[in-house]
Amino acid sequence: MYENVDCCFKYIGYVRREDNSASRDNLVKVIINEEFEDGLIGIEEFSHLIIIYHLHQATFDGRVKRVRDGKEIGVFATRSQFRPNPIGISVVSLIRREGNVLIVKGINAIDGTPVLDIKPYDTWDRVDSPKVPHWHNGGK
Amino acid sequence: MYENVDCCFKYIGYVRREDNSASRDNLVKVIINEEFEDGLIGIEEFSHLIIIYHLHQATFDGRVKRVRDGKEIGVFATRSQFRPNPIGISVVSLIRREGNVLIVKGINAIDGTPVLDIKPYDTWDRVDSPKVPHWHNGGK
Repeated sequence: MYENVDCCFKYIGYVRREDNSASRDNLVKVIINEEFEDGLIGIEEFSHLIIIYHLHQATFDGRVKRVRDGKEIGVFATRSQFRPNPIGISVVSLIRREGNVLIVKGINAIDGTPVLDIKPYDTWDRVDSPKVPHWHNGGK
Repeated sequence: MYENVDCCFKYIGYVRREDNSASRDNLVKVIINEEFEDGLIGIEEFSHLIIIYHLHQATFDGRVKRVRDGKEIGVFATRSQFRPNPIGISVVSLIRREGNVLIVKGINAIDGTPVLDIKPYDTWDRVDSPKVPHWHNGGK
Protein backbone atom coordinates (compact mmCIF):
# COMPACT_ATOMS: atom_id res chain seq x y z
CA MET A 1 0.00 0.00 0.00
CA TYR A 2 2.83 2.40 0.80
CA GLU A 3 5.75 1.96 -1.55
CA ASN A 4 8.49 4.54 -1.25
CA VAL A 5 6.53 6.86 1.00
CA ASP A 6 8.65 8.93 3.36
CA CYS A 7 7.82 10.72 6.54
CA CYS A 8 10.07 13.18 8.29
CA PHE A 9 10.51 14.09 11.94
CA LYS A 10 12.37 16.87 13.72
CA TYR A 11 14.89 16.24 16.45
CA ILE A 12 13.55 17.36 19.83
CA GLY A 13 16.79 16.91 21.77
CA TYR A 14 19.76 14.63 22.23
CA VAL A 15 21.61 12.25 24.50
CA ARG A 16 24.55 13.58 26.47
CA ARG A 17 26.88 11.19 28.25
CA GLU A 18 30.50 11.38 29.26
CA ASP A 19 31.45 7.75 28.83
CA ASN A 20 32.27 6.62 25.34
CA SER A 21 29.68 3.85 25.27
CA ALA A 22 26.04 2.91 24.88
CA SER A 23 25.96 1.11 28.22
CA ARG A 24 22.66 0.88 30.03
CA ASP A 25 24.41 0.94 33.40
CA ASN A 26 25.32 4.62 33.61
CA LEU A 27 23.38 7.76 34.33
CA VAL A 28 22.86 9.71 31.15
CA LYS A 29 21.32 13.06 30.30
CA VAL A 30 18.55 13.50 27.78
CA ILE A 31 18.54 17.17 26.89
CA ILE A 32 15.37 18.52 25.31
CA ASN A 33 15.37 21.65 23.15
CA GLU A 34 14.13 24.56 25.23
CA GLU A 35 11.09 25.09 23.04
CA PHE A 36 9.80 21.75 24.33
CA GLU A 37 10.70 22.12 28.01
CA ASP A 38 7.07 22.61 29.03
CA GLY A 39 6.35 19.30 27.35
CA LEU A 40 8.10 17.63 30.28
CA ILE A 41 5.80 19.00 32.99
CA GLY A 42 4.58 16.18 35.19
CA ILE A 43 6.92 13.58 33.76
CA GLU A 44 8.59 13.23 37.18
CA GLU A 45 5.47 11.40 38.35
CA PHE A 46 6.41 8.41 36.23
CA SER A 47 9.17 6.03 37.28
CA HIS A 48 10.01 4.90 33.77
CA LEU A 49 10.04 6.40 30.29
CA ILE A 50 10.44 5.21 26.74
CA ILE A 51 13.00 7.21 24.81
CA ILE A 52 12.73 7.05 21.03
CA TYR A 53 15.79 8.17 19.10
CA HIS A 54 17.42 8.23 15.72
CA LEU A 55 20.30 5.78 15.38
CA HIS A 56 22.01 8.46 13.34
CA GLN A 57 25.31 6.66 12.90
CA ALA A 58 23.83 3.37 11.77
CA THR A 59 24.04 2.93 8.03
CA PHE A 60 21.72 0.25 6.71
CA ASP A 61 23.37 -1.78 3.96
CA GLY A 62 20.16 -3.33 2.65
CA ARG A 63 20.67 -6.75 4.26
CA VAL A 64 17.37 -7.84 5.79
CA LYS A 65 18.83 -11.07 7.21
CA ARG A 66 21.49 -11.58 9.88
CA VAL A 67 23.16 -14.61 11.34
CA ARG A 68 22.35 -15.53 14.91
CA ASP A 69 23.63 -18.72 16.42
CA GLY A 70 24.47 -20.05 12.95
CA LYS A 71 21.06 -19.46 11.39
CA GLU A 72 19.56 -16.72 9.31
CA ILE A 73 17.27 -14.35 11.17
CA GLY A 74 15.33 -11.41 9.81
CA VAL A 75 16.34 -7.94 10.90
CA PHE A 76 12.91 -7.34 12.47
CA ALA A 77 13.56 -10.30 14.77
CA THR A 78 16.65 -8.52 16.08
CA ARG A 79 17.36 -5.29 17.91
CA SER A 80 20.28 -4.55 15.57
CA GLN A 81 20.85 -0.86 14.95
CA PHE A 82 21.32 -1.62 11.25
CA ARG A 83 17.69 -1.72 10.16
CA PRO A 84 15.66 -0.18 7.33
CA ASN A 85 14.54 2.68 9.57
CA PRO A 86 17.21 3.26 12.22
CA ILE A 87 14.85 4.08 15.07
CA GLY A 88 16.00 3.05 18.53
CA ILE A 89 13.95 2.75 21.68
CA SER A 90 15.05 2.30 25.26
CA VAL A 91 13.02 1.82 28.40
CA VAL A 92 14.76 3.88 31.07
CA SER A 93 14.24 4.72 34.68
CA LEU A 94 13.83 8.40 35.33
CA ILE A 95 16.14 9.50 38.11
CA ARG A 96 15.18 13.19 38.06
CA ARG A 97 14.35 16.14 35.88
CA GLU A 98 16.27 19.41 35.93
CA GLY A 99 14.35 21.82 33.71
CA ASN A 100 14.80 20.63 30.14
CA VAL A 101 17.19 17.84 31.18
CA LEU A 102 16.18 14.32 32.16
CA ILE A 103 18.66 12.21 34.09
CA VAL A 104 17.92 8.61 33.17
CA LYS A 105 19.36 5.15 33.53
CA GLY A 106 19.05 2.39 31.00
CA ILE A 107 19.48 4.09 27.65
CA ASN A 108 21.26 2.08 25.00
CA ALA A 109 22.46 5.00 22.89
CA ILE A 110 25.74 6.83 22.39
CA ASP A 111 26.60 10.43 23.15
CA GLY A 112 25.02 12.81 20.65
CA THR A 113 22.17 10.53 19.65
CA PRO A 114 19.25 12.69 18.47
CA VAL A 115 15.98 12.16 20.32
CA LEU A 116 12.63 11.97 18.51
CA ASP A 117 10.10 11.37 21.26
CA ILE A 118 9.67 10.64 24.94
CA LYS A 119 6.72 8.69 26.28
CA PRO A 120 5.77 7.67 29.80
CA TYR A 121 6.02 3.94 30.42
CA ASP A 122 2.55 2.58 30.73
CA THR A 123 1.23 -0.65 32.15
CA TRP A 124 0.34 -1.58 28.55
CA ASP A 125 4.07 -1.75 27.85
CA ARG A 126 4.69 -4.43 30.45
CA VAL A 127 4.78 -8.09 29.47
CA ASP A 128 5.31 -10.31 32.45
CA SER A 129 6.86 -13.31 30.79
CA PRO A 130 7.88 -12.57 27.22
CA LYS A 131 9.11 -15.53 25.24
CA VAL A 132 12.53 -14.77 23.82
CA PRO A 133 14.53 -17.35 21.82
CA HIS A 134 17.92 -18.45 23.09
CA TRP A 135 19.69 -16.97 20.06
CA HIS A 136 18.44 -13.48 20.80
CA ASN A 137 21.17 -11.21 22.07
CA GLY A 138 19.43 -7.97 22.80
CA GLY A 139 20.79 -4.84 21.17
CA LYS A 140 23.71 -6.50 19.41
CA MET B 1 22.48 21.03 19.69
CA TYR B 2 20.02 20.03 17.00
CA GLU B 3 17.71 22.88 16.07
CA ASN B 4 15.49 22.28 13.08
CA VAL B 5 17.22 19.11 12.00
CA ASP B 6 15.00 16.63 10.21
CA CYS B 7 15.32 12.94 9.60
CA CYS B 8 13.19 10.93 7.24
CA PHE B 9 12.05 7.32 7.26
CA LYS B 10 10.35 5.10 4.72
CA TYR B 11 7.18 3.20 5.43
CA ILE B 12 7.84 -0.54 5.62
CA GLY B 13 4.20 -1.62 5.80
CA TYR B 14 0.84 -0.80 7.32
CA VAL B 15 -1.91 -1.84 9.70
CA ARG B 16 -4.96 -3.58 8.27
CA ARG B 17 -8.02 -4.06 10.43
CA GLU B 18 -11.67 -4.42 9.67
CA ASP B 19 -13.12 -2.71 12.69
CA ASN B 20 -13.24 1.03 12.60
CA SER B 21 -11.25 1.52 15.79
CA ALA B 22 -7.85 1.55 17.44
CA SER B 23 -8.92 -1.02 20.04
CA ARG B 24 -6.26 -3.22 21.54
CA ASP B 25 -8.71 -6.06 21.96
CA ASN B 26 -8.98 -7.26 18.39
CA LEU B 27 -6.76 -9.27 16.11
CA VAL B 28 -5.13 -7.00 13.56
CA LYS B 29 -2.87 -7.55 10.57
CA VAL B 30 0.45 -5.83 10.17
CA ILE B 31 1.34 -6.17 6.50
CA ILE B 32 4.98 -5.68 5.59
CA ASN B 33 6.05 -4.66 2.09
CA GLU B 34 7.24 -7.74 0.23
CA GLU B 35 10.77 -6.42 -0.12
CA PHE B 36 11.10 -6.78 3.65
CA GLU B 37 9.43 -10.17 4.08
CA ASP B 38 12.72 -11.91 4.78
CA GLY B 39 13.24 -9.43 7.60
CA LEU B 40 10.55 -11.34 9.51
CA ILE B 41 12.33 -14.71 9.53
CA GLY B 42 12.48 -16.08 13.04
CA ILE B 43 10.13 -13.50 14.51
CA GLU B 44 7.65 -16.30 15.35
CA GLU B 45 10.01 -17.36 18.13
CA PHE B 46 9.09 -14.26 20.12
CA SER B 47 5.79 -14.01 21.96
CA HIS B 48 5.63 -10.21 21.87
CA LEU B 49 6.71 -7.44 19.53
CA ILE B 50 6.98 -3.69 19.58
CA ILE B 51 5.36 -2.06 16.57
CA ILE B 52 6.50 1.46 15.75
CA TYR B 53 4.26 3.45 13.46
CA HIS B 54 3.51 6.87 12.09
CA LEU B 55 0.41 8.47 13.59
CA HIS B 56 -0.24 9.81 10.13
CA GLN B 57 -3.60 11.37 10.88
CA ALA B 58 -2.51 13.21 14.01
CA THR B 59 -1.90 16.89 13.35
CA PHE B 60 0.18 18.56 16.05
CA ASP B 61 -1.10 22.05 16.79
CA GLY B 62 2.01 23.19 18.66
CA ARG B 63 0.53 22.88 22.15
CA VAL B 64 3.11 21.21 24.38
CA LYS B 65 0.79 21.14 27.40
CA ARG B 66 -2.46 19.28 27.96
CA VAL B 67 -4.95 19.19 30.77
CA ARG B 68 -5.20 16.01 32.80
CA ASP B 69 -7.36 15.82 35.88
CA GLY B 70 -7.55 19.63 35.98
CA LYS B 71 -3.83 20.30 35.84
CA GLU B 72 -1.38 21.11 33.07
CA ILE B 73 0.76 18.22 31.92
CA GLY B 74 3.46 18.23 29.29
CA VAL B 75 2.85 16.29 26.10
CA PHE B 76 5.84 14.02 26.79
CA ALA B 77 4.15 12.93 30.02
CA THR B 78 1.20 11.69 27.97
CA ARG B 79 0.64 9.11 25.28
CA SER B 80 -1.44 11.56 23.26
CA GLN B 81 -1.19 11.09 19.52
CA PHE B 82 -0.87 14.85 19.12
CA ARG B 83 2.85 15.24 19.76
CA PRO B 84 5.74 17.03 18.07
CA ASN B 85 6.76 13.84 16.29
CA PRO B 86 3.68 11.67 15.82
CA ILE B 87 5.38 8.34 16.40
CA GLY B 88 3.28 5.65 18.02
CA ILE B 89 4.41 2.44 19.64
CA SER B 90 2.42 -0.57 20.76
CA VAL B 91 3.50 -3.70 22.55
CA VAL B 92 1.58 -6.53 20.93
CA SER B 93 1.35 -10.24 21.25
CA LEU B 94 2.23 -12.09 18.10
CA ILE B 95 -0.46 -14.63 17.27
CA ARG B 96 1.12 -15.92 14.06
CA ARG B 97 2.97 -14.98 10.90
CA GLU B 98 1.71 -15.71 7.41
CA GLY B 99 4.51 -14.74 5.03
CA ASN B 100 4.73 -10.97 5.07
CA VAL B 101 1.71 -10.62 7.36
CA LEU B 102 1.81 -10.60 11.15
CA ILE B 103 -1.40 -11.29 13.04
CA VAL B 104 -1.11 -9.42 16.33
CA LYS B 105 -3.18 -8.43 19.31
CA GLY B 106 -2.76 -5.23 21.27
CA ILE B 107 -2.06 -2.57 18.67
CA ASN B 108 -3.49 0.84 19.39
CA ALA B 109 -3.59 2.10 15.81
CA ILE B 110 -6.28 2.57 13.20
CA ASP B 111 -6.64 0.88 9.83
CA GLY B 112 -4.12 2.18 7.32
CA THR B 113 -1.54 3.33 9.87
CA PRO B 114 1.90 3.22 8.23
CA VAL B 115 4.48 1.08 10.02
CA LEU B 116 8.08 2.24 10.50
CA ASP B 117 9.71 -0.58 12.42
CA ILE B 118 9.11 -3.86 14.21
CA LYS B 119 11.26 -5.02 17.10
CA PRO B 120 11.13 -8.14 19.23
CA TYR B 121 10.08 -7.49 22.81
CA ASP B 122 13.09 -7.97 25.01
CA THR B 123 13.42 -8.50 28.73
CA TRP B 124 14.97 -5.00 28.83
CA ASP B 125 11.55 -3.64 27.89
CA ARG B 126 9.86 -5.10 30.94
CA VAL B 127 9.38 -3.01 34.05
CA ASP B 128 7.77 -5.00 36.81
CA SER B 129 6.16 -2.22 38.79
CA PRO B 130 6.16 1.05 36.87
CA LYS B 131 4.93 4.06 38.80
CA VAL B 132 2.14 5.72 36.86
CA PRO B 133 0.26 8.76 38.25
CA HIS B 134 -3.47 8.53 38.82
CA TRP B 135 -4.17 11.20 36.19
CA HIS B 136 -2.56 9.17 33.44
CA ASN B 137 -5.05 7.77 31.00
CA GLY B 138 -2.99 5.75 28.58
CA GLY B 139 -3.32 6.53 24.93
CA LYS B 140 -6.01 9.17 25.30
